This record gives sequence, C-alpha cells and structure tokens, in this order.
Amino acid sequence: MPRTLILLTGASRGFGKSLTLALSASKLVAQETDLLLTARNTAQLEETKAEALAAASSKSLHIVTHSADFTSLDLDSVCKDLFAKIPHPATQYARVYLFNNAGSLGKLDRMRHQTPDDISPAVHLNLTAPLALTSAFLRHFPNPTQIHIINISSLAAIQAFDCWGVYSATKAARDMYHKTIAVEEPNIRVLNYAPGPLNTDMQTRIREEMPDVPLREVYTDMHAQGKLVEPTVSAKVLIGLLEKDEYENGAHIDIYDVKGW
Amino acid sequence: MPRTLILLTGASRGFGKSLTLALSASKLVAQETDLLLTARNTAQLEETKAEALAAASSKSLHIVTHSADFTSLDLDSVCKDLFAKIPHPATQYARVYLFNNAGSLGKLDRMRHQTPDDISPAVHLNLTAPLALTSAFLRHFPNPTQIHIINISSLAAIQAFDCWGVYSATKAARDMYHKTIAVEEPNIRVLNYAPGPLNTDMQTRIREEMPDVPLREVYTDMHAQGKLVEPTVSAKVLIGLLEKDEYENGAHIDIYDVKGW
Repeated sequence: MPRTLILLTGASRGFGKSLTLALSASKLVAQETDLLLTARNTAQLEETKAEALAAASSKSLHIVTHSADFTSLDLDSVCKDLFAKIPHPATQYARVYLFNNAGSLGKLDRMRHQTPDDISPAVHLNLTAPLALTSAFLRHFPNPTQIHIINISSLAAIQAFDCWGVYSATKAARDMYHKTIAVEEPNIRVLNYAPGPLNTDMQTRIREEMPDVPLREVYTDMHAQGKLVEPTVSAKVLIGLLEKDEYENGAHIDIYDVKGW
Repeated sequence: MPRTLILLTGASRGFGKSLTLALSASKLVAQETDLLLTARNTAQLEETKAEALAAASSKSLHIVTHSADFTSLDLDSVCKDLFAKIPHPATQYARVYLFNNAGSLGKLDRMRHQTPDDISPAVHLNLTAPLALTSAFLRHFPNPTQIHIINISSLAAIQAFDCWGVYSATKAARDMYHKTIAVEEPNIRVLNYAPGPLNTDMQTRIREEMPDVPLREVYTDMHAQGKLVEPTVSAKVLIGLLEKDEYENGAHIDIYDVKGW
C-alpha cells in the first residue's frame, strides 16, 4: 500500500492549526497517511493533534507530533531530529507533502527602527530555517517519490507595506526559492499560497503592536467590519488547490485569485 | 559648504570597484564629498582608493577606507566601527548615499544540495547584513539630510534561475526591503539597480563552479561571444540614473531597461 507523508511546520495555532484540521478532513489523507506536525509549544501541538484525529476523514490517518525549534542555529540537528520522527523509511512513501508554514511577523516597525537583534532572528526563522528544512526534505526522499512543497506566502511577498519590511523581505525570498525549486526540478509540485488577511493571532498583534500608521487603521477596520478571512476558510481553499493539482508549478496564488472562494 | 557622504560596500573589486571609480569621476562628487569605502581585503581596498583618487573629477573628493567584515554576527559593532570612520558629524552632511553592493553568490548548486552551512552565511551576508546596515544608516542621519539608497540588485531578484536559489532569494528580499523604505519614507530616494550579467570574477566563478546545467552554457556562450556587460559600462549607466534622479522611487531598474546604454 503506497503511503503518504505530510510534514507541516507551525501546526500548533493560527493558520497552521486550521490547515492541519482541514488536511485531516480532506481526501489527501484517504490512503495510509502519516501527518508529522511540528511547533515549539508541545501542549498546543497535542491539542491540535486531538482535534485533527476527531476531524479525520479516514482511519488511515496517523499523526505524530514533534517539538522542533527552528530558532535554533543548529538547523542540521533540528532537521535530523525531525526526520527521525518519520514513522517509515523514506522509500515506503509514494507521495510526500511539505508545508512551510512556520514564520514570524518580527518587530512591526519601520526599517529605520529595526536593529540587528530585531532583524536577525526573523530572517533566521522565516527564511534560513525553511530553506534548510526544504533542502533536507528533498534529500530525504529519493526518486520516484512524488514531492509537493507548499509555501505559506503572503501578499507581502509581492507588495511592500509600511512597517512590514523584514516580514515582506523574507516572504519575497521564500517565494523566490520555492520558484527556484520548480525551475530546478519540474517533477516536484511547488505552490506559493497567500492565505489572505487572516483572522488569527497575527492580526491581533498587528492591531495591538503596529505603530500608528494608516495601514494599521486598514487592518483595524477590516477586523471591525468582519472582512478578515477566517483561517478555516482559507485552509479549505488551499486544500482545494492541492486536490485539483492544476496550478502552474511554482506559482504565487492569493486566496483572492481563487474563483468562488 | 554642504557636504556629501557616500558609503559603498564591497568596494575592493568587481562591480564595487568599477562603481567607486565611476563615482569618483562623476558630478556627484563635485561638492565636498567624503567617500567611505568598505571591503574585507585591505590591500585591494587601498588599490581602489589610489585609482579612484587618480580618476577623481574634483579636488573636493576625500576617500576613507575601512575594512568591515559583514560576515560577523555582531553587526551592531560592525556598523558602529564603520560609522566611526565618517569624517564629520552627521549634521554636516546635506546629502548622503548608501550603496548596498557587497554580496556573495553562495554555493552554486540546486536547492536539494544546499546544507545549512551553505545557506546560513549567504543569507547573513546578502540579506541580514545590508538590512542591518541600512537601518543603522537611516538612524545615523537626522532630517533634513537628503538620503539616497542604492541596492545593487540582479535579474535574479525577479526571476528564478537553476542553481541560484539562495542568491535569488536574498536578492528578491533585498529588493523588497528597499521598496519598503520607499513606501515608509517617500522623501528618501531608493533605487534597486540590476547591473546586468557583468564580466567580473562572479561570472568567472559561474563558468568554473556551476554544475553542468544548460544555464551554465548560456553564460559560457555569453562570455565567449563578448556579450557580458563590462562593469565600467554598467557603473556609468547607474551613475547616469542617479545624476538624472528621475527614477520611480523604489523601482527595480535593469541595465537592459535603460535606453541607449
């Protein structure tokens, strides 16, 4: 029986949690599937696992959690420890998915107020870590495994926003290296998905911590008017794109580009 | 007399050296100008300084060199030591330029072969360091100093290339954070300049070190047919853009976009 592996980072909350639940309830886990969830917060990760098993569409879904700390500078060890949790040898997986979801807003402020201590950890977590993880993931799975890599991107990857410099820069970089994989290995399926302005903790932080610039009002108004996108909705739109599997390889697709979402 | 400061990183060779010479011979240094050049290699930096003084269009040009190591993780100290070499107090400068030129190709190979030891130093040098430097530079110069920031970009910032993943990702990120500055502070002039495929050591490395993929042949052929762009030519095109000062703020301009170069 061909197995599927799904590895999802930042699964404990926000969009990562919604995505985990939507995946568990989807056709993508219809065959024997190992879902490997990572986050730093073990308790929240276990909650996600319990909810995902309750929502599961199939008894063929097996969930493994692992507390991975991608803020660590020793990414070799982080990846090694993580891959040790994959339940079966790599050759037994016919199809694997990597969701590069984990990320941080960093310090919400204008570039002139960013110090190396603000910049460096955000670049590491948002860029260096997923890049290292993705490369290690590609090495872990030999041909002819069908590999799917999904980068959780942002509108900020293609448009500059006031006070979002470090976040935007790292999101633009993530898009670009995922596009590079699509160029280098056309048999790997790669998608950059911008999930929309999500009604999650990240938006709460934006409303609370962003300096008093016009963009902050935009988000405050969107929240007040119920115009933020529910992460459960956006997760289902992404699953729909993956089930259809018709997107242009390496494309950046925003939820607002998807018809009838 | 209003003074000008120009800070240029990676000035010892390649495009940085050509840019230094072109700047020194340009109208941009007609007023009292302090040109602060950085690189790691002190001997090459002194050569650049001597050649620049010989090429200088004006006796008002003063050149200071400083061996800065942007591979250092202590970027606070690197910036502090560098700014200590600025000859006059910040308030005495009416106009300042920062050229974010330093950068590294990193390891030329497909993403699946990149390890954290390949990725991390390249991300630090190409992204974290110039980001930290730029932010510190903005803090150093109070209003109403006229600030110009020039990012030496690449076609790779907007297009994915085989074996160039880390370079492309960091170049895309650099473009985006420079664009963010243009959004955040419209009175600062910001330009992302892609200098073309330059006939420098970087292209020599590409011909020698790139894996045997079709793109390598493209560059080998361009070199054989004399189609690489001379860095002295590209530097003058950039100086022309800065002298005219009519570019859209935050734009990405490729040498091939410039009429009659």
